[in-house]
Amino acid sequence: MSEPRNCQSHEFPWEGRGASLDITGARFSIYPMDNSFASIILDSILMVNTDKVYSESDALSTVYRGRLKHVFDCMGAVFLNSWSPGLHLALEGQVSKGCPGDSDADSYFTEDDVPLNRPNLTVENFSVIAKLALYPLGCPGYLDIIGEVIRMADREKLNPKIIHYATRIEGGIFEVLDFLEHVSAFAQDKSSHYVLHFTISAGSPTREQPYS
Amino acid sequence: MSEPRNCQSHEFPWEGRGASLDITGARFSIYPMDNSFASIILDSILMVNTDKVYSESDALSTVYRGRLKHVFDCMGAVFLNSWSPGLHLALEGQVSKGCPGDSDADSYFTEDDVPLNRPNLTVENFSVIAKLALYPLGCPGYLDIIGEVIRMADREKLNPKIIHYATRIEGGIFEVLDFLEHVSAFAQDKSSHYVLHFTISAGSPTREQPYS
Repeated sequence: MSEPRNCQSHEFPWEGRGASLDITGARFSIYPMDNSFASIILDSILMVNTDKVYSESDALSTVYRGRLKHVFDCMGAVFLNSWSPGLHLALEGQVSKGCPGDSDADSYFTEDDVPLNRPNLTVENFSVIAKLALYPLGCPGYLDIIGEVIRMADREKLNPKIIHYATRIEGGIFEVLDFLEHVSAFAQDKSSHYVLHFTISAGSPTREQPYS
Repeated sequence: MSEPRNCQSHEFPWEGRGASLDITGARFSIYPMDNSFASIILDSILMVNTDKVYSESDALSTVYRGRLKHVFDCMGAVFLNSWSPGLHLALEGQVSKGCPGDSDADSYFTEDDVPLNRPNLTVENFSVIAKLALYPLGCPGYLDIIGEVIRMADREKLNPKIIHYATRIEGGIFEVLDFLEHVSAFAQDKSSHYVLHFTISAGSPTREQPYS
């Protein structure tokens, strides 16, 4: 298998300013399947140190914008803050960079990559299942880039399985969050504009047959 | 604004058999924010008449594959079956067609477009908010195609608003489901391979400032 070709903006006709901005964004929603969902969601968002990102929440979702490291640090902290043993909790998210229509509004940029949240959390690792789908946009060679993601998951020991319309993985929450950050870094290296969609689920009572 | 260019498979180098198959698929998850989530999810899925689609559920999500009309009919029925006044309920989904790697396995194809579920449901229309993001893949002119979606939402009176990484809409659940089906039909007409991601939310207790 050959190395995926790069698909940077000079190869496609969209040369909007957005594609040259170093602003990564995440839009995500968190779903605690529990009668106390409102306080779980609000408390977990309020507990996040957002000093290094732009943040905005509405009834549908929360957006963080800034450096990749901090966007993942903050989004991961919301999930980690929300979780408690016995709760069925899901996070649906997208991480993106390089939309030609993007602007530098609504962003916050720091020079450093020192995360403010995860190093200070006391939660221990726990098992999750997840699925992800990467979309390099405007890029004829997109399937090669997507194919590399499966090999990355394999190298990171997340037991990837190709399912219809996505790749499924399983592992500890820290390893899964790290992997999604690695995929984002890989995608921004290979494609001027990418979107990564994912779902992380913990504590589902559904018992499945093991897959190999 | 010019009409978006078509981006059919002859224009890009991926000519896998999948792109020529007439199989639309949906992968989605439903999140009832309630202690009874397990029975709400399972009952709503079991109530769906899946005679005209291939269906598969696991701990993360459910897949339907077949004709566009039936895929939307079944997925919409899960949301409509799950809902009750006072419940905060969300559906996260993706609808896709034309992945060059797709095969005709795991699909069910009928010639007719007569839906088996929604005409038989007694649930009345209710208000939802939703967001969507369309990805025409392998397609240098993808932004023109995406731009048309906002105009479609405007014509269908769903009050579209461009937000970071998505378009937000609001309206009755029937109109929102119909609109997502219209966007899928439009996308398959314009692009050999597309993925449409969306989130539908009902009954959120979050009070927002009205937006115009």
